[in-house]
Amino acid sequence: MPEAAPAVDARAIAERIDSWRVRTDDALQRALDGCRDSEPRLLAAMRHAVLLGGKRMRPLLVHATAEAFGAAAGVADAPAAAVELVHAYSLVHDDLPAMDDDALRRGQPTVHVAFDEATAVLAGDALQTLAFSLLAATSAEATPVPPLTRLAMVEVLARASGAGGMCGGQALDLAATGNGSIRDVAALERLHALKTGALLRAAVALGALAAGVDTPTRARLDDFAAALGLAFQIRDDLLDVEGDRDTLGKTPGKDAAQDKATFPALLGLDASRARLETLALRMREALAPFGEAAAPLAELGRRAIERDH
Amino acid sequence: MPEAAPAVDARAIAERIDSWRVRTDDALQRALDGCRDSEPRLLAAMRHAVLLGGKRMRPLLVHATAEAFGAAAGVADAPAAAVELVHAYSLVHDDLPAMDDDALRRGQPTVHVAFDEATAVLAGDALQTLAFSLLAATSAEATPVPPLTRLAMVEVLARASGAGGMCGGQALDLAATGNGSIRDVAALERLHALKTGALLRAAVALGALAAGVDTPTRARLDDFAAALGLAFQIRDDLLDVEGDRDTLGKTPGKDAAQDKATFPALLGLDASRARLETLALRMREALAPFGEAAAPLAELGRRAIERDH
Repeated sequence: MPEAAPAVDARAIAERIDSWRVRTDDALQRALDGCRDSEPRLLAAMRHAVLLGGKRMRPLLVHATAEAFGAAAGVADAPAAAVELVHAYSLVHDDLPAMDDDALRRGQPTVHVAFDEATAVLAGDALQTLAFSLLAATSAEATPVPPLTRLAMVEVLARASGAGGMCGGQALDLAATGNGSIRDVAALERLHALKTGALLRAAVALGALAAGVDTPTRARLDDFAAALGLAFQIRDDLLDVEGDRDTLGKTPGKDAAQDKATFPALLGLDASRARLETLALRMREALAPFGEAAAPLAELGRRAIERDH
Repeated sequence: MPEAAPAVDARAIAERIDSWRVRTDDALQRALDGCRDSEPRLLAAMRHAVLLGGKRMRPLLVHATAEAFGAAAGVADAPAAAVELVHAYSLVHDDLPAMDDDALRRGQPTVHVAFDEATAVLAGDALQTLAFSLLAATSAEATPVPPLTRLAMVEVLARASGAGGMCGGQALDLAATGNGSIRDVAALERLHALKTGALLRAAVALGALAAGVDTPTRARLDDFAAALGLAFQIRDDLLDVEGDRDTLGKTPGKDAAQDKATFPALLGLDASRARLETLALRMREALAPFGEAAAPLAELGRRAIERDH
């Protein structure tokens, strides 16, 4: 007769997640310290974009996945920081006047407001470069990562963030905004699968690479990550309707003002919330075979759905 | 008694260089074809930025260096295309209204003019990503490149193009434009060593990596590349004074209009031309020990100095 599984200690999980957040902030700080000889205003803008907060969802996913499958935390440091740098650069560019024209992000002025547009363009560019630099660097870390694994990480991150991933999704979003061209949920899901989903899936894939998991495990983890990505976006859309500016740290109501297709607009609020429940179930099912080891990963899935900012 | 060296066949060298240009255009075309499922407007903007011409100086340097030291051309294809993609992305972003605000490039409307600003930002972003993607891809090429070499290539390209290289140089340029803060040639050289020099040096370093040359050879090649980079920029400054719009394919006289520090402005025209002669000599001396094998590389150095666009 199998032993009963030990009760999941919610506090221990939260502490584990907090420790990864600290590791991530340290790794990002080190990466930016490595740029200390750069032009001061550019570097200040890069720091502004990266170090002033953020949920660190993507790096936490890298660490939670890597640790669930036995990787040393040091192996996950570079990919965790790299995926956050890509996320940060994308926010800097998305906030530009020619794009979403956002003045507030994480409760702070956006980079082009705090600095200027030209600096924001360059800071975003340099943050993207830094992401790939971190993955390739073979000397800066205490924990060696095999060259083929590093290359696979560069490939996964590039695929998720380029024209076939995040940038492509942003272009779809631009093409669709204000013209009503996205009329059904399937089209909206395709857009978000690229715009936000690809990078969240890449985070989990990077953690899986760090741990060297087998192909079926990777597929199952990817199913978890795909559900998480979609849930994350539906929650984002709901917060834009229901959230408040102080908790969000950005201006709510922008989607409606810009006539963007959203899940609440296409499905209604109740059906959007029901959809989140379905995705929560899919996440739990995907992780079920991994037991306690995946509890922090499951907790990150739960937070994606229940977050208020 | 040693045999006399065969006369350098200028036509054979020109044909060799032309063959690398064709290889480069093919590699770039293949890389963009790999994005064919991306959002159509984004992909069209990426193609516009990459496929409508350009001297291909950086990829030609990769090939000329690689072949001079015995690498198969196939090994140089990915780094040659990658360095050109980084160059192309930087031009798209530099041309933006918030940066240099250029409407014409290579005789064509710039990307934000032909498309729009948001698409130009995204296309530049996606081109940068594609560069790193090409270097990391382990399956797309006929000629295998060892993983450690690929990683070193990612590192070299990232270092040259990020905050400590090209982006940093562009930030220095922004900081200096219109305020007279660059008063001497040494400061101007530091700016251009980052803004244009770093990527030209990276091109030669990538070719050297492709061929696996030893450290002293690499240092000598880097000396050639540093001289070429500076010469390239002085020639650029001279063309902005002396060139004409139809040959240049862009608007001359912009430096003076924007009150930019240039070599002609700081040194005068004659001393700038004399400086080019000195750099030509330094390039020849750096390549001297390599004999005929480096003749195409020497020819590229000559073209950097004598070009009219």
